[in-house]
Amino acid sequence: MNYNKLISIDIKLIMRNVLKNQIVIDGLEYCNWNREILEDLWTGGITAVHATLVYWENTEESFNRIKKIEELIQNNKDIICHAKKSQDILNAKKENKVAFIFGFQNSAPIANDIFLVEKFFNKGLRFMQLTYNNQTPLAGGCFETKDSGVSRFGIEVIEEMNRLGMIVDLSHAGKKTCIEAIKVSTKPVAISHANPKFFHDSLRNIDNEVLIELANKNGFIGLSLYPYHLRDLSNCKIEDFCSMIKKLTNLIGTDNIGIGSDLCLNWSNEVVMWMRNGKWTKKTDYGESKDNSVEWPKQPNWYNKPSDINNVFQAMIKNGIKEQTAIKIIGMNWLSFMQNHF
Amino acid sequence: MNYNKLISIDIKLIMRNVLKNQIVIDGLEYCNWNREILEDLWTGGITAVHATLVYWENTEESFNRIKKIEELIQNNKDIICHAKKSQDILNAKKENKVAFIFGFQNSAPIANDIFLVEKFFNKGLRFMQLTYNNQTPLAGGCFETKDSGVSRFGIEVIEEMNRLGMIVDLSHAGKKTCIEAIKVSTKPVAISHANPKFFHDSLRNIDNEVLIELANKNGFIGLSLYPYHLRDLSNCKIEDFCSMIKKLTNLIGTDNIGIGSDLCLNWSNEVVMWMRNGKWTKKTDYGESKDNSVEWPKQPNWYNKPSDINNVFQAMIKNGIKEQTAIKIIGMNWLSFMQNHF
Repeated sequence: MNYNKLISIDIKLIMRNVLKNQIVIDGLEYCNWNREILEDLWTGGITAVHATLVYWENTEESFNRIKKIEELIQNNKDIICHAKKSQDILNAKKENKVAFIFGFQNSAPIANDIFLVEKFFNKGLRFMQLTYNNQTPLAGGCFETKDSGVSRFGIEVIEEMNRLGMIVDLSHAGKKTCIEAIKVSTKPVAISHANPKFFHDSLRNIDNEVLIELANKNGFIGLSLYPYHLRDLSNCKIEDFCSMIKKLTNLIGTDNIGIGSDLCLNWSNEVVMWMRNGKWTKKTDYGESKDNSVEWPKQPNWYNKPSDINNVFQAMIKNGIKEQTAIKIIGMNWLSFMQNHF
Repeated sequence: MNYNKLISIDIKLIMRNVLKNQIVIDGLEYCNWNREILEDLWTGGITAVHATLVYWENTEESFNRIKKIEELIQNNKDIICHAKKSQDILNAKKENKVAFIFGFQNSAPIANDIFLVEKFFNKGLRFMQLTYNNQTPLAGGCFETKDSGVSRFGIEVIEEMNRLGMIVDLSHAGKKTCIEAIKVSTKPVAISHANPKFFHDSLRNIDNEVLIELANKNGFIGLSLYPYHLRDLSNCKIEDFCSMIKKLTNLIGTDNIGIGSDLCLNWSNEVVMWMRNGKWTKKTDYGESKDNSVEWPKQPNWYNKPSDINNVFQAMIKNGIKEQTAIKIIGMNWLSFMQNHF
């Protein structure tokens, strides 16, 4: 480490200390991590981030992705660490590091094999989505015209995830699947990154019936900052985002809400098209882009990097959300929810 | 080859010649093939058999299974061969060999990857089921309480199978999936091994509505001799089986019916339990066994080995089915159907 780098880290440490008394958790990011992004997480005072490792990858590819992120953590262990237990998040806070929590945005890695759930759990996996837009052997996706709900295998896998302490993530699932999974799961489930449909009516956002059922079972929603989930997309105003939060707290209370930014950084445009298409079609699917864009959507100007989560925190308070509620939403709620699982 | 074996083959050759003018096709067998079973196929005058290679196996395991059966064919090339085109079936007949047609009883081998359909096609795969009892990314299974029908990926895969000339097999699919797949597919589809529900009301058997839609689109049903698909199970009388055929010809005509015996030979009881449970549950599923049997069901006494298909042929004629119809059902119909695909 050279002298300049040391100075630079000292300045960042000062910035970080401003936020040190707060728990800040981002319930989902999918970045092509490099030192710069990791330092932004650290400087921004983010306590923990649920990091997506895979979408369409098969079993072997998924184990390889875990190996890669373990290497990343090893190579940046001065500022990040791997959280397998919620206590690890608190320890990370004490040790001035950002805790990484591993998640899969699909069940493709387990294929038909329930025994793989524990194998991935043992490698640190703590979130797994049942589906990613499309139907899986477990459940129905939000882009399907017909949502199967939770299948025979899905019921078994949810039971296994409950047993282990792996969070059932219903992001990208269909409505029927959400309703059924909330019922089937003996532990509260999460929708780690989505917004209410009343804010922006997209296939990925969640309608009130699901939000109410979710909260009734102490389930969780992480609010998304991905443009296709926002009112006015990339032009979404931070005030509108905060009004949505207020409306949501009126609907389901203040305990089951957090942020799941869905921030995707440092990827080529091929990656957004791969996220939409995987290898499931020989044609081209444009996801929720109305104008068939093949590019990453532009982030709103108030949220471009992990540390911008502080803009959301400040805006909440400026827009009439009580500080205690804002503190819960920016991280304490996620922490309590995770403490209930692992 | 020793002298005794040569004599034995000569006698079998004479037996086979009795049947030589007939096309006999079994639309599904799942045997742990050995020389004895292969010789029984050959002696029995079977022209071709659709052989199941996998159920729950993943991509790599499925390619390995293909390699194994290629070795089997190579090691027994005096009496069997691999049919990739329907012309290969006719050539096999001329060359006095039994043609093997490769099939998968699930879509697990292609996982989420549509490009694997062509890769497996190029290795000789000519039948693939969308589902095996349970839901898959493509469609709903017959054991699910909720049948999704054909998913987004399922529609894409059916189009790809149609393009290549791989038969869409709806055995083990749910009713809604059957109805939808019949509509979606531009080529006639098959239910390679099942019986009408009016004969025996099991989850695996097919109701009249599906049979009629199937035949309306020139689709095909191969009638099963697996005990759980038969009236009175292992005690099913051959006369009853033939009455069912007559009733079925009254419902859908005589062109779209064949035999798909579902004969499973030379496997340990572990295999029947593996077929039911794969790795999708940590509990035990007993399939359609009402008394939770963990053993292979006993075959009816008139159908215990591949060559016993001749008992079915003779019984059809004895029980008032016209010889020309029996000839079609015992093989000619399957041949015409396959000629329409590959």
